Amino acid sequence: MLKYPEPIAKLIEELKKLPGIGEKSASRLAFYLLRAPEESIRELARSLIDLKEKITLCNVCFNITDITPCYICREEREEIICVVEDPLDLIAIERSGAYKGRYHVLHGVINPIDGIGPESIKIKELIERVKREAVREVLIATNFTVEGEATAVYIIDLLKNIGVKVTRIAQGLPAGSDIEYADRYTLSRALQGRREL
Amino acid sequence: MLKYPEPIAKLIEELKKLPGIGEKSASRLAFYLLRAPEESIRELARSLIDLKEKITLCNVCFNITDITPCYICREEREEIICVVEDPLDLIAIERSGAYKGRYHVLHGVINPIDGIGPESIKIKELIERVKREAVREVLIATNFTVEGEATAVYIIDLLKNIGVKVTRIAQGLPAGSDIEYADRYTLSRALQGRREL
Repeated sequence: MLKYPEPIAKLIEELKKLPGIGEKSASRLAFYLLRAPEESIRELARSLIDLKEKITLCNVCFNITDITPCYICREEREEIICVVEDPLDLIAIERSGAYKGRYHVLHGVINPIDGIGPESIKIKELIERVKREAVREVLIATNFTVEGEATAVYIIDLLKNIGVKVTRIAQGLPAGSDIEYADRYTLSRALQGRREL
Repeated sequence: MLKYPEPIAKLIEELKKLPGIGEKSASRLAFYLLRAPEESIRELARSLIDLKEKITLCNVCFNITDITPCYICREEREEIICVVEDPLDLIAIERSGAYKGRYHVLHGVINPIDGIGPESIKIKELIERVKREAVREVLIATNFTVEGEATAVYIIDLLKNIGVKVTRIAQGLPAGSDIEYADRYTLSRALQGRREL
């Protein structure tokens, strides 16, 4: 059986680690890159390294950003904090155009099976922030999965103790689905239909 | 509309240039990479750069290689030269297991519309090699496309003048198809059914 030259085999190996890229796609990409101009390969390699070097978390909302506080935290926005699991959820909600407030990114959900407790995600930071800032509402927009719901319940309990108004994004989304993949219209309806808890 | 932080937007832009990767796949990959360990990103970036720095063309057969002459040219093989358009065709033929000879990679086909004449691909090098080496047969395995056939005809004419035996891979492959994508059984039959010209 023919072996690829080592640098090609290595690149195919690395590409296959990416989600949705199998043996065939990885080979096709590797041979495409082999023919591509050196400069464009260097650009791609540089972008990969920059990603890790230049992206940090906003020290207010913990969204990914290249400046801190991030540009959303710098904007004049409604004094509502929308709590999401990860940055892709934030992006989906921003794109719906139905929300004009601030955000708080948890970076995960409580998941005891995987050993992720409340202290592993940005819950403490949320509570401190709500106490510190003039927040008139906290809108919980974790996913409608078992872990997302459990995380919502946990946070709602803590916030009720503070006395702030707490809302949950409406069940316009199908049960068990991810916010990240919802279309903007479903998301708009879910945002508008939020109910007080 | 929300903008991604610049380093993410840049990476998505670079990923979208790759074949088969659109906006959605590029975003998904970028966010996957954002969460991946720094070391694995550096590995991927390093593999990309190594690809260009370590891969050269064999100075005998012009296959891609990290040593020259390449490991196929270093092997004891039958004194047949199989002429292919590009390295992926060579790989497909090697994988069929039905061919034990040598190769010559043209790196393209004659295509006047795109301004690719016989001097743009490794035809001169093939002729010199056939004159120089003790070759008992040249097997033309360019694709059965218009350009592949035209290139075959052009090369066959030159080789006939030298007086070497020239064969063409059999029409077991569907017309208009690429060798690169043929299954190994179809390829085996096509190799076995080659006819003298």
